[in-house]
Amino acid sequence: MSILIRNVLLDGERRNVLIEGNRFGSLNAPGNAPADEVIDASGFAILPAFYNTHSHSPMTLLRGYADDMELFTWLNDHIWPFEAQMKPEDIYAGTRLAILEMIKSGTVFFCDMYWMEQESARAAAEMGVRACVSVHVIGFQPREAQLQTLARARTWKDQAEGRVTMAVAAHAPYTCGAELIVECHDLARELGMPFVIHLAETRKEFDDCVGEHGMTPVQYLDSLGVLDRNTVAAHVVHVTDEDAKILADREVVISHNPVSNMKLASGVFQSDKLQKAGCRITLGTDGASSNNNLSMIEEMKVAALLAKVSSGPLAGSAETVLGWASRNGAQAFGLDAGVIREGALADAILVDLANERLVPNHNLISNWVYSADSSCVDTVICNGRVIMRNRKIPGEQQIREQAQQSVERILARLSQAKAAS
Amino acid sequence: MSILIRNVLLDGERRNVLIEGNRFGSLNAPGNAPADEVIDASGFAILPAFYNTHSHSPMTLLRGYADDMELFTWLNDHIWPFEAQMKPEDIYAGTRLAILEMIKSGTVFFCDMYWMEQESARAAAEMGVRACVSVHVIGFQPREAQLQTLARARTWKDQAEGRVTMAVAAHAPYTCGAELIVECHDLARELGMPFVIHLAETRKEFDDCVGEHGMTPVQYLDSLGVLDRNTVAAHVVHVTDEDAKILADREVVISHNPVSNMKLASGVFQSDKLQKAGCRITLGTDGASSNNNLSMIEEMKVAALLAKVSSGPLAGSAETVLGWASRNGAQAFGLDAGVIREGALADAILVDLANERLVPNHNLISNWVYSADSSCVDTVICNGRVIMRNRKIPGEQQIREQAQQSVERILARLSQAKAAS
Repeated sequence: MSILIRNVLLDGERRNVLIEGNRFGSLNAPGNAPADEVIDASGFAILPAFYNTHSHSPMTLLRGYADDMELFTWLNDHIWPFEAQMKPEDIYAGTRLAILEMIKSGTVFFCDMYWMEQESARAAAEMGVRACVSVHVIGFQPREAQLQTLARARTWKDQAEGRVTMAVAAHAPYTCGAELIVECHDLARELGMPFVIHLAETRKEFDDCVGEHGMTPVQYLDSLGVLDRNTVAAHVVHVTDEDAKILADREVVISHNPVSNMKLASGVFQSDKLQKAGCRITLGTDGASSNNNLSMIEEMKVAALLAKVSSGPLAGSAETVLGWASRNGAQAFGLDAGVIREGALADAILVDLANERLVPNHNLISNWVYSADSSCVDTVICNGRVIMRNRKIPGEQQIREQAQQSVERILARLSQAKAAS
Repeated sequence: MSILIRNVLLDGERRNVLIEGNRFGSLNAPGNAPADEVIDASGFAILPAFYNTHSHSPMTLLRGYADDMELFTWLNDHIWPFEAQMKPEDIYAGTRLAILEMIKSGTVFFCDMYWMEQESARAAAEMGVRACVSVHVIGFQPREAQLQTLARARTWKDQAEGRVTMAVAAHAPYTCGAELIVECHDLARELGMPFVIHLAETRKEFDDCVGEHGMTPVQYLDSLGVLDRNTVAAHVVHVTDEDAKILADREVVISHNPVSNMKLASGVFQSDKLQKAGCRITLGTDGASSNNNLSMIEEMKVAALLAKVSSGPLAGSAETVLGWASRNGAQAFGLDAGVIREGALADAILVDLANERLVPNHNLISNWVYSADSSCVDTVICNGRVIMRNRKIPGEQQIREQAQQSVERILARLSQAKAAS
């Protein structure tokens, strides 16, 4: 299978880009190079796709279900009761809606942290994107449930020609005991998988950790020996200078989730400090109940704005945050992708240069980070296959309808459960 | 002229909305009510349109021209030299591009602060939106130029059946002397126009004002007697508790521009303090060289996020920021609009409920503020006329092309000017 993308704008020049199999073959192919599929891209520019390094994709079903409230009320009275009613078919339907939304805004990969991960993996495999799904444990689960969950990692086989892989996730330092965290990390190392954890998200977590362990959350995890280059830490909002140095030295992957952190009032990510310390920063959207969308375009702009208002107008440049959202995210998960380069995995976005948000085109990267929205994204390519063309995705109406039906079933069960209690 | 919008979702119910002339006639019309135009809105919800209370619309031509730099470098080396080459036809072309972008994202009104305001007024009148354009003076201009500019306010007649009106603008307290500010305010009062000014945008402005006048910028303007309910103050980032009380007592209209303030690192708007003091808060995008788009959808979300990360998760609720962006903005300019109400001016947006960003529909206002982007906006109505349907605007390709041609002419002149100097 080969695709010739003719006359596309790349780094300021019109080129013919040839994809052979699942990799970029040539960025300077002849205009008449033979190919199975030819795309006339005269009106388009080609850009790297997005890699969303922290999500809870089935939570699209909770989009707008509960907002503008305190964390405890939000979780206890709304999110958890709803989630308790979710069945495997709901996880599948919610993930499909999430993937639909991600493709529409140019994302080809997500690292997911949820339950019934097989359902999310199936959705990603079918819809043509990449995903890293987690087996995910939390301290208050019965030990039996934890063991069953972790056991699934041992029997996992990468799916869909390596597009869909697995990680081992422990929820957070404040919800998992030290033994469980180390057990998850050891299992991940043994199986060659990433180890995923929420880290230093709120001030309360930071203060409690210092109170209980005499160490910051970052130092506490470091004392357990679980920080290394295969560790993906989400949020990482509350960090000292020493924490920043540890994260850089251990080459930990940081998933920065600015929208979620701001919406839940968790705090201000210290991007300038972490960037200058040499940390590996990537971007993630978090789930649709704390964002409430999965747009990495928006995440880039908010990341840049937050960096600037915190650290001055030179912080969080367009080039920098695009790197967080594309190249850094791909590298974090061992993908030879995130850039348009001969030999790299063929993931890419074609953006519509006639869209008013991209006019005039003084600087495409600036327009992409600071001006664009999903309406600019015309075509999405993942692993050498076109998964969206002309903003159309096969079966999208059914995906939306099935998600809506899942929500109605969940709400009916929730209502019954409340009546019975 | 009448329009029947059949079976549209309004406040959780399916209704038939009848527009008669330029106002909402009935929100509960019979499904077979006679009308000149019938819109089947079964797949849509109707929402208030947006009122953008601070913009520099011709600056769309500078979108992405200069980013990620210090304010002084940005203005001196990039923005001002480019602007010096702009001619009336460029102002017209740039404003048309701005209006195109605003309509596509649901905005029907903008308050503009730029030069050659007649060109912007013409663009707004032709394209069917509302605008309040300013005659705009700044202290360093020759007195003759100031007088010529202000004289235009005296000969102004509202255009396009009142859709296009005028304001008198003084640039800012630090660029205009006290006499000029008072002169502008007096002229605005005499002519029954709004008085527009940038106020308390940066820390430097605040500190310099305290140093020079012994008063904060707000207190300084109050001492000049120019703060009242017809004053529209843009930015208002650096304010004391006493300033907040003055702004509330004087009923000053505040145009909050969160994206611009964050991108230029101006500071954090104190929305919770100003809201609690009873101030009249509205939203504006500022110009496309400090934003870099004109989307009020994005502005709402960033305003909410900034409020929450500053003042907790209950601040900046979806309902509150939607009020800033719609109802408050309309009221600020004396428009009986910004809400879907019988008798009000018929401005509205139809959003596509099948768009993945609005699925599921637990809470439409939450989805609109926290999840939507311009791809959700299908139809825009202003003053009882459909100005966008199915995301198509008459002549849009020509608008984009003419803007691009303007940019090329400006860059050529700029290059000549540099070679000659």
